[in-house]
Amino acid sequence: MPHVITFAGGESGAWRVTAMQQVFGPVLEPVTQLNITQSSERPPQPATGWALQGLISNLRYAERGEVVQLRNRQEGLGRQHARCAALIPIKKSQAWWDLAQDERRAIFETRSHHTAVGLDYLPAIARQLYHARDLGEPFDFLTWFEFAPEHASAFDDLLARLRATEEWRYVEREVEIRLERAG
Amino acid sequence: MPHVITFAGGESGAWRVTAMQQVFGPVLEPVTQLNITQSSERPPQPATGWALQGLISNLRYAERGEVVQLRNRQEGLGRQHARCAALIPIKKSQAWWDLAQDERRAIFETRSHHTAVGLDYLPAIARQLYHARDLGEPFDFLTWFEFAPEHASAFDDLLARLRATEEWRYVEREVEIRLERAG
Repeated sequence: MPHVITFAGGESGAWRVTAMQQVFGPVLEPVTQLNITQSSERPPQPATGWALQGLISNLRYAERGEVVQLRNRQEGLGRQHARCAALIPIKKSQAWWDLAQDERRAIFETRSHHTAVGLDYLPAIARQLYHARDLGEPFDFLTWFEFAPEHASAFDDLLARLRATEEWRYVEREVEIRLERAG
Repeated sequence: MPHVITFAGGESGAWRVTAMQQVFGPVLEPVTQLNITQSSERPPQPATGWALQGLISNLRYAERGEVVQLRNRQEGLGRQHARCAALIPIKKSQAWWDLAQDERRAIFETRSHHTAVGLDYLPAIARQLYHARDLGEPFDFLTWFEFAPEHASAFDDLLARLRATEEWRYVEREVEIRLERAG
């Protein structure tokens, strides 16, 4: 069974929300805490706040050379010094999804250097991508980042570089949720 | 909301099962009829028989030139003369899913000619692919085919050609369900 991950925004959870910024599209209700759970089935929506769900799927664009580079450089989630995090839910436009695979790959990596940009920030900025579109979720992707407080400005750089790419012209909804470990 | 399609095998439905063949892996319980429904949420599993679910997602391998060829030649489902159908659920191995995108594309099209083989049988053999893996289903893909009775042997050829490919070495479960319109 796939692991469905649920990011539940509300008034409890292991992560404290330090800032929420609506980058593109409709607002996501402001919350103060984030609770993360994994399950084999999709839990019901909470009565208050929100719950965004996704799952780890196979790679959609990365070629073997990129996979090797990523594996050599990246570190996992849960590092003790990584007390800062960000959750960035994104929805892309129908125009993106109507593109053929070679067209999406050309925009994603050949011209926007998505993987290459992320590599520049490894191992400092750890990340995990969760796919949500085929679950009928309001966002297509949920990306979770973890880093030490001293790398927060590097993380800002990473976001600025990605948002300046051709790929980002296809982003029609994006929310930036910045967090710190509550404990 | 995505359209979840459910293929329910049991004792009722618009399609009569004429043959079920276990090609690879565990058996799927024999049934006599197939009922097809669409919904925005996943219906519960039936008390008897089985229900396989999937959804139409974005293209994973087809490049623009192939998309144009497919659109120029293919016809939709539901043609009145297409009284024969087949449902072919497939599960691929973990080794397949661990491959990078360029490796899967090379096997799928460069060496196995998956799209090119299918094009040879258009417009006679109409098909629709449904993705199931990220739903946690027992199969990764459900492919539905419709064709006129006089094209049944062409359909057999199509299956034989696909099963002889390098791509099919990664298929660890496959069931072939042949059907006729019940009405």
